[in-house]
Amino acid sequence: MYRIVKNGDVKALNLLKSRPIFLFTVGNTLTASIPGITVAGANSDLIKFTPPADVELLHYGKCEIIPFPPATPDGKPTPALITYTSLRLTNIPFFVVDAGLIVKPYTPVLNVRAPVGENIAERDAMNVGDVDRCFKLAKLIGSKISELADVIVVGESIPAGTTTAGAVLKALGVDCKVSSSMPENPVELKRKVIEKATSRLNGDETPLEIIAKVGDPVILVASGIACGSKKPVIFAGGTQMAAVAHIALRLGFSGNGIIVTTKYVAEDGTADIASISPIPVVAADPMLDRSSKSGLRAYSEGFVKEGVGAGAATLIAYMRGIKPEDFLNEVEEDYEKIVECV
Amino acid sequence: MYRIVKNGDVKALNLLKSRPIFLFTVGNTLTASIPGITVAGANSDLIKFTPPADVELLHYGKCEIIPFPPATPDGKPTPALITYTSLRLTNIPFFVVDAGLIVKPYTPVLNVRAPVGENIAERDAMNVGDVDRCFKLAKLIGSKISELADVIVVGESIPAGTTTAGAVLKALGVDCKVSSSMPENPVELKRKVIEKATSRLNGDETPLEIIAKVGDPVILVASGIACGSKKPVIFAGGTQMAAVAHIALRLGFSGNGIIVTTKYVAEDGTADIASISPIPVVAADPMLDRSSKSGLRAYSEGFVKEGVGAGAATLIAYMRGIKPEDFLNEVEEDYEKIVECV
Repeated sequence: MYRIVKNGDVKALNLLKSRPIFLFTVGNTLTASIPGITVAGANSDLIKFTPPADVELLHYGKCEIIPFPPATPDGKPTPALITYTSLRLTNIPFFVVDAGLIVKPYTPVLNVRAPVGENIAERDAMNVGDVDRCFKLAKLIGSKISELADVIVVGESIPAGTTTAGAVLKALGVDCKVSSSMPENPVELKRKVIEKATSRLNGDETPLEIIAKVGDPVILVASGIACGSKKPVIFAGGTQMAAVAHIALRLGFSGNGIIVTTKYVAEDGTADIASISPIPVVAADPMLDRSSKSGLRAYSEGFVKEGVGAGAATLIAYMRGIKPEDFLNEVEEDYEKIVECV
Repeated sequence: MYRIVKNGDVKALNLLKSRPIFLFTVGNTLTASIPGITVAGANSDLIKFTPPADVELLHYGKCEIIPFPPATPDGKPTPALITYTSLRLTNIPFFVVDAGLIVKPYTPVLNVRAPVGENIAERDAMNVGDVDRCFKLAKLIGSKISELADVIVVGESIPAGTTTAGAVLKALGVDCKVSSSMPENPVELKRKVIEKATSRLNGDETPLEIIAKVGDPVILVASGIACGSKKPVIFAGGTQMAAVAHIALRLGFSGNGIIVTTKYVAEDGTADIASISPIPVVAADPMLDRSSKSGLRAYSEGFVKEGVGAGAATLIAYMRGIKPEDFLNEVEEDYEKIVECV
């Protein structure tokens, strides 16, 4: 069901049985416009629709701004599918936070004045003033939402987010490769972008200045939420959430924090989530290797792997008594309704 | 402390002692640009800043987008002052919902794609398609927030909102005059605007079509939230909330609902909240007649009277054990810090 990949205090996982609230920080970085850097969209024109379409899917079991669910160019569906199934079965409350969206979804969103991120290969991601202001509002949201919950779960959707996360980690002195939604992780391309971005740094930047120069608005908003929370925080994702956790710890996050991701990220040979993460890491197994659907089985073959909090969503379903085989069946039924019927 | 102005089931008031969540639906209608129709702003250029400045005050005890708190042209301060004191003392969770703001506040806001309302004297307030979509998203927010609360309290801030409310009430066949933030309620001017607006109606409009033609985005969003709520709803305001309650009841609101307002609205001779309201009405007394501050005493002399949920905020403070005289002292201290020190 799940495995502790990096040891530490993971007692907060039990809070997923009581009153969790899931926050989805979704946004865009123009870094995604670099050809080949992401497959989070069927083609380059569609990449910007992936985050809003993901959260529409979470709300309605279908997308509104595009007529089909987000997918890779070769048709592997968005991990929002798995998260949708978990939210549907567990009924846990969730909200979308606009962390720099180009296109707004047809759902309610929490707005914290997050700017869209620039292409970090070419220029600074965001203006420092915007970053400061947005961080304050994100902290306020973290604080407000945490008053209503026992634990906050923070997920993400931002195409090319692993590249910006890699740049932030490098800037923080965390030596790492980063995970990717592609089995042939374009390590060399990402490395070049990260090099180019981090070459703009002086080395004396504050954490928020690092985000402003080489990060993205999702890292900004997610770390702000964590810093504002008065309750434990589950960082729902892979290497991106490792970057968020590092930033949050440097900006005063003192609460309990755990990264929860999928088995597929934890087993990714091109990345190493356990060594990158500054906090405990838990990996949930959605058992997609046993799926009869090739689009889902692909996850276990190194495609997509994680996103939109799919790992944490799987764990929440398990913690609330749903058996892994039943969860897989429900995911497959949703896959039939949402992907195969389009 | 408080008085039942219109009888009925008011048991839900007790829920204010447990887990209430306060939602502030704030927006603009260009109806406010009609000279003389509102005093919710020190001058005509400042009116559009009143709703965002009100919610900044609730968050920070000061405003960010204008250097002083909203006030009438002759310096009577915004009722957000009273609400701020209550939120500060009771610590109850609250969120701002953007119900058609021209200028966005420097606070987190929930966005439901609400349009700014047009001047109903000249044209339809909103496009029917926008109204339908916004109503759906507002219902979703009502549903989501109600899962986290025992009771939802819905307040408002929208200059000229009593005029649009009057037009909606007339369109619904509710014969009434409406309250106002002025002691010399400009009844004749309002009546003319309401006449002009409602003359565009055919008489066969649905409730949402009525809002689209002669209403405003705050009535739209507040009634959507009520219809989505799975818990009782406190409609925090005066005649505007009577319009919201009528609309909500016609659109499927079946839960417990109570209007909670101030004594000053309840005693307004130019309006009659008890006869206008389709649900029980409770009036809280902030005892501002006993204040040493003329700006606060003015409320008891017919100025401002209500707004930004001040009546319900007062009641919440009382329900949570704060004595009226202590509450008044705290309001006066905030008045000194926020109004007198600017």
